[in-house]
Amino acid sequence: MKTVIVGGVAGGMSAATRLRRLDETAEIVVFERGPYVSYANCGLPYYVGGVISDRSSLLLQTPQSLAARFRLDVRTGHEVISVDPVARAVAVIDVAAGETFVEGYDELILAVGASAREAAGHPGIPTHTLRTVEDVDAIGVLVEAAADHPSALVVGGGFIGLEAVENLVRRGIHVTLIQRSPQILTPLDAEMVAPLEAQLRSRGVDVRTSVTIDAVETGEVLLSDGARVRPDFIIDASGVVPSVDLARSAGLRVGPTGGIAVDSRNRTSDPHIYAVGDGVEKVDALSGQEALVTMAGLANRHGRSVADVIAGHDERNAPALGTAIVTVFDTVAAKVGWSERQLTAAGRAHRAIHTHPSSHATYYPGAQPMSMKLLVDPETDAILGAQIVGGEGVDKRIDVIAVAMAGGITASGLARLELAYAPQFGSAKDPVNQLGYVADNLRSGTTRAIQWHELDAALDAGATLVDVRTTREHAAGAIPGALNIPVDELRERLDELPAGPLVVHCQVGQRGHTAARILSQNGRDVVNLDGGYRTWVAGRRMSSPSPSALHSAAGSE
Amino acid sequence: MKTVIVGGVAGGMSAATRLRRLDETAEIVVFERGPYVSYANCGLPYYVGGVISDRSSLLLQTPQSLAARFRLDVRTGHEVISVDPVARAVAVIDVAAGETFVEGYDELILAVGASAREAAGHPGIPTHTLRTVEDVDAIGVLVEAAADHPSALVVGGGFIGLEAVENLVRRGIHVTLIQRSPQILTPLDAEMVAPLEAQLRSRGVDVRTSVTIDAVETGEVLLSDGARVRPDFIIDASGVVPSVDLARSAGLRVGPTGGIAVDSRNRTSDPHIYAVGDGVEKVDALSGQEALVTMAGLANRHGRSVADVIAGHDERNAPALGTAIVTVFDTVAAKVGWSERQLTAAGRAHRAIHTHPSSHATYYPGAQPMSMKLLVDPETDAILGAQIVGGEGVDKRIDVIAVAMAGGITASGLARLELAYAPQFGSAKDPVNQLGYVADNLRSGTTRAIQWHELDAALDAGATLVDVRTTREHAAGAIPGALNIPVDELRERLDELPAGPLVVHCQVGQRGHTAARILSQNGRDVVNLDGGYRTWVAGRRMSSPSPSALHSAAGSE
Repeated sequence: MKTVIVGGVAGGMSAATRLRRLDETAEIVVFERGPYVSYANCGLPYYVGGVISDRSSLLLQTPQSLAARFRLDVRTGHEVISVDPVARAVAVIDVAAGETFVEGYDELILAVGASAREAAGHPGIPTHTLRTVEDVDAIGVLVEAAADHPSALVVGGGFIGLEAVENLVRRGIHVTLIQRSPQILTPLDAEMVAPLEAQLRSRGVDVRTSVTIDAVETGEVLLSDGARVRPDFIIDASGVVPSVDLARSAGLRVGPTGGIAVDSRNRTSDPHIYAVGDGVEKVDALSGQEALVTMAGLANRHGRSVADVIAGHDERNAPALGTAIVTVFDTVAAKVGWSERQLTAAGRAHRAIHTHPSSHATYYPGAQPMSMKLLVDPETDAILGAQIVGGEGVDKRIDVIAVAMAGGITASGLARLELAYAPQFGSAKDPVNQLGYVADNLRSGTTRAIQWHELDAALDAGATLVDVRTTREHAAGAIPGALNIPVDELRERLDELPAGPLVVHCQVGQRGHTAARILSQNGRDVVNLDGGYRTWVAGRRMSSPSPSALHSAAGSE
Repeated sequence: MKTVIVGGVAGGMSAATRLRRLDETAEIVVFERGPYVSYANCGLPYYVGGVISDRSSLLLQTPQSLAARFRLDVRTGHEVISVDPVARAVAVIDVAAGETFVEGYDELILAVGASAREAAGHPGIPTHTLRTVEDVDAIGVLVEAAADHPSALVVGGGFIGLEAVENLVRRGIHVTLIQRSPQILTPLDAEMVAPLEAQLRSRGVDVRTSVTIDAVETGEVLLSDGARVRPDFIIDASGVVPSVDLARSAGLRVGPTGGIAVDSRNRTSDPHIYAVGDGVEKVDALSGQEALVTMAGLANRHGRSVADVIAGHDERNAPALGTAIVTVFDTVAAKVGWSERQLTAAGRAHRAIHTHPSSHATYYPGAQPMSMKLLVDPETDAILGAQIVGGEGVDKRIDVIAVAMAGGITASGLARLELAYAPQFGSAKDPVNQLGYVADNLRSGTTRAIQWHELDAALDAGATLVDVRTTREHAAGAIPGALNIPVDELRERLDELPAGPLVVHCQVGQRGHTAARILSQNGRDVVNLDGGYRTWVAGRRMSSPSPSALHSAAGSE
């Protein structure tokens, strides 16, 4: 049996090596358009920044090593240009030789990934994506050749764009980052990315949201906000679209998202053609609908599982949660599942919970602040998504929540998770347990909460806002109009509260919860401001027209 | 309603504060024998070592702060000496005043914890446990008063003992660590703790296993192995037993493990007396049987949930997995569920998997080696336990596996977990995913494996051992009698292999798997040595009579 694989990086090479381990006699041919196979694409931005200094460490395998270990026929510099599903054959160009030939197959795996949304050329300014070894080689040359005060324009503040920014800054390059939408890192909600944008600005990055390129004229870029920049080069990280030309040439079905349609065994609409990786639709775990989830982990996993299918095993993909993480200097941001924006757009009922715990016990040195957001189905208590921004321990907590989602553990059930505790690593009640406690209090009606963006409406409707922090905290920065009664004095000062509904808040939400319990048991109609002053400041900063408008208030965080 | 709580640290104080939040009008009295409440007991060893320098940071709350925030009546220096369940009253000594009084209750919560197994006094040598603020104050005085070349004897190499050793070494003290059993940290299996013992020895700690104290004579300790030491002081970390004197005074049922027997609502055999924390039996998640699991997380959680029960909520405990972690200098060790030793002792069928992955992508700087062990039910594919030893990322992986166990995810199912990936944090196929792949290969019969301790029997039965590492690796240290054929040459050198069954091995198990697949498809009867040379060396080192016997072989790891 002969299997031809188009694409020799994550998904394609996982398929090839697994297939060999399952079938010593299979004929396996891998065509890769570029000069390299099985390279570390997730490491490329860090090679640009010099964090990874040894270029060869990016090149995990060569056609020679793959032939020796796995008896694979790997041909780099070979581009597959069309598929004939009836003849079961692909047409291939040997790029160096300039020759075209036809290769037959019994089974075909397309692992061609995605490509830049718009391969826009900009007159007078070199422009590159950051997806291949060739890209980073070219960017490296540009960095070396740049002027005394080099500058770059990065288009797109998603995962790759942010990694590009960080690594260009590491090389001493002044970076302007433009983002079409009103915030960077749109898989996260606005109030969660506030610390990321602050972090970028503190490193001298010129962050411009809701901005696109209007025009490029002889080395100058005119931005839609009227600014003009003269970058030495441009990194296009504006996003990718599935590469479906080959699939279309084969008459394969392309799904509603623009990716190649496959079943849970990664089989396309042709029974002898499979597809994996960024070019392929996945099934979203929450909606059960097709979705584009372009993660290296899924590409690798599906590459392996498609080999199982071809070898006759009954292997099926699980729906995708879309767990992802990015580091921006000292700040780490991670997500799983859906954002509040997605849930709202889909009209799906949800409850949001914000907390601001420490990464580990505060009495042990080095604890770092962390902001967490959990999204919960108010009917079923199911976890719909989570977002975490902080430093140490962000990766652990997002993984814990991702596994809880995979295991069907409810939001309240997070309280019962037995996580490894020593003071270097967490708290006896871990931040994830604490999320569960808050979820449980909301589910049982022990406490009621409103979101930062619901506060104005509540106050407009006549509620009184009570800041239960200390007078010192209140003086250092407060929500306009709040009445300050510290929680420890609340029982004695109940008569100072006006009649009518109350909204209480503290710094992060915990004392507010205690205050809300005191007040509700004293017969008051009270809600707690979820996430406290800290979430409110972050939300307001992001929804304010000028990013610096609330700067003085934010300074007291 | 009046609730009396005996014990004001983890479980007791969680119960008190939660009960107040649920019931503003409840009368809540907390009696604490010692001078402090709600202190950071897990931080105490680090205060000894100077890692935590500010003593006040250990004291999280005071009776005054708890009165102000939660209107609690907290009385330190008050020891409850007996319980009269008929009269619903406790007898209390006010230690300072020397007065005894009786306090009535509607509901009683016992949160008195555990105490040292044997409060052995040693003539001429000060001896302390490490469980309270008073303990660390006393140890601090001893450390300051110690001689020019101070030395200490730590009895017991469990979690607390190891933290004590590390922190005494930090203070420049020479430590002898004795352990009754043949290895330290007995919740882990022998081959997994080899790096911990090596780490301790490399820091100058005199580790003596299978050793007890024979006698103490005027400042000199005679050990059972014949050695004599003259420590300035002794830390007794030989383990704890539940404090059940009060429970017995009340006629409460004490369970088969020696802990107070409670139901899933932490109710004792008396309907108005509850108990939580280290003094109480938990239900083991794997056996469904009573077990002693003395973890701060469970004490805090059950303290909170017992308040829910008393306030009328339907709250029940989940069975306990016993997730735990400890740091020993640069090495972190963690476990969840059962060890292989426990499974074997219980006659429970199991399959062991050893891997040695990197904490994150090796092309990104700073990746650290990690050893993982997964224990799997061969019938159901359920995860029975896991152990991880390494540095960075150990805490994350043990938490991920603990949550998978809680969510009923199978061992093979670990392969499908979507964990957050960027090269700083893991690999596209995370070490936990890799465990799942190995489990899946074993479950499906794609590969067969034997354990390090099964190798001798296989060779005695006539199998040939084949080392598929490079000739260079083989030359640097090998299992005696192994035939060396590198995996990349195996297909061409099949005729060099003698007839009969084969055992293949590599360094960590991965190339061995590929080799086993090649050989089995060539008609050979072959098994892979699980965990490769590295696990074999660790296991042999621990089972060898002299710890240094295999030192030269181990050096090549």
